[in-house]
Amino acid sequence: MNVFEAIATRRDVRQYTDDPIKPDDLDQILEAGRRSPSSSNEQRWDFVVVTDRSELQDLSTVWQGAKHVASSAATVALVAPEPADEGGRLSTHYDLGQTTMCMMLAAVELGIGSAHAHVEDQNRAREILGFPADLTCPWMVAFGYPADRPLQVIRHPNRRPLEEVVHRGRW
Amino acid sequence: MNVFEAIATRRDVRQYTDDPIKPDDLDQILEAGRRSPSSSNEQRWDFVVVTDRSELQDLSTVWQGAKHVASSAATVALVAPEPADEGGRLSTHYDLGQTTMCMMLAAVELGIGSAHAHVEDQNRAREILGFPADLTCPWMVAFGYPADRPLQVIRHPNRRPLEEVVHRGRW
Repeated sequence: MNVFEAIATRRDVRQYTDDPIKPDDLDQILEAGRRSPSSSNEQRWDFVVVTDRSELQDLSTVWQGAKHVASSAATVALVAPEPADEGGRLSTHYDLGQTTMCMMLAAVELGIGSAHAHVEDQNRAREILGFPADLTCPWMVAFGYPADRPLQVIRHPNRRPLEEVVHRGRW
Repeated sequence: MNVFEAIATRRDVRQYTDDPIKPDDLDQILEAGRRSPSSSNEQRWDFVVVTDRSELQDLSTVWQGAKHVASSAATVALVAPEPADEGGRLSTHYDLGQTTMCMMLAAVELGIGSAHAHVEDQNRAREILGFPADLTCPWMVAFGYPADRPLQVIRHPNRRPLEEVVHRGRW
């Protein structure tokens, strides 16, 4: 599968089969995330990878939109510092978005679906995952084999038209 | 080129040949960005794509780290709203990171290098690009054919080791 096919195939998958992800495949996804670029190559991220069913169920309670985490085969919690200045916080999140997409696209190639989730209850997330008090876990990415329908190229994605999004030369 | 190869091949490229990017290839990169996921599918982004040399040179002055924009074949300025709440601003930047990575990886497949840049001088960016006063342009992504060395798989990336970044089950 080439890159553009993977981009056109990726969709949010929130219903997963019971199949586990092979350790080597999970490591390939994590390696894709590790290789992502970041502001000044600061790599302001740690990945806590969760595959235990009971822990995944606990983790699914940290935000109302995180229910799909409970049935995922693996969820990667993105843990990051919270810089004092807002510019630092914004660039951290930009970088977390980049590493998220690397992991999601690497997963597509392996036939694995994904969907991100926000983390609202930081205290609960910290209890479950054990990350230090000076770090936060703003996002999680759930992975698993799609139970709804196979991954395949989406011809007409539910997105704004290209010529609305793109401005040539000037707005 | 498969997805993982593209991820392992992508690097920041800031020296470009004089070759232009074919319009269809540039549109493929923009299409990759358009297809990116976003929080609640809000697609809080517009892309201003700049290929005019004089405009690129102007644009390269909006941040001290944006000099490479001047010699890029094309630069995509990411324009986005600035929500009133910080959570909204952070999730916007997370989404901008995801669309950035989609574009960068689509470019790799075409043999095109890329490097992002921050935008510090919003007023100047707005003068050059003409985007509305209620939007900002926090990031740009420069594209061009590498003038330094070809794109090829990086065996040992300058990154923290996987087993330092990854925590299994719990921190």
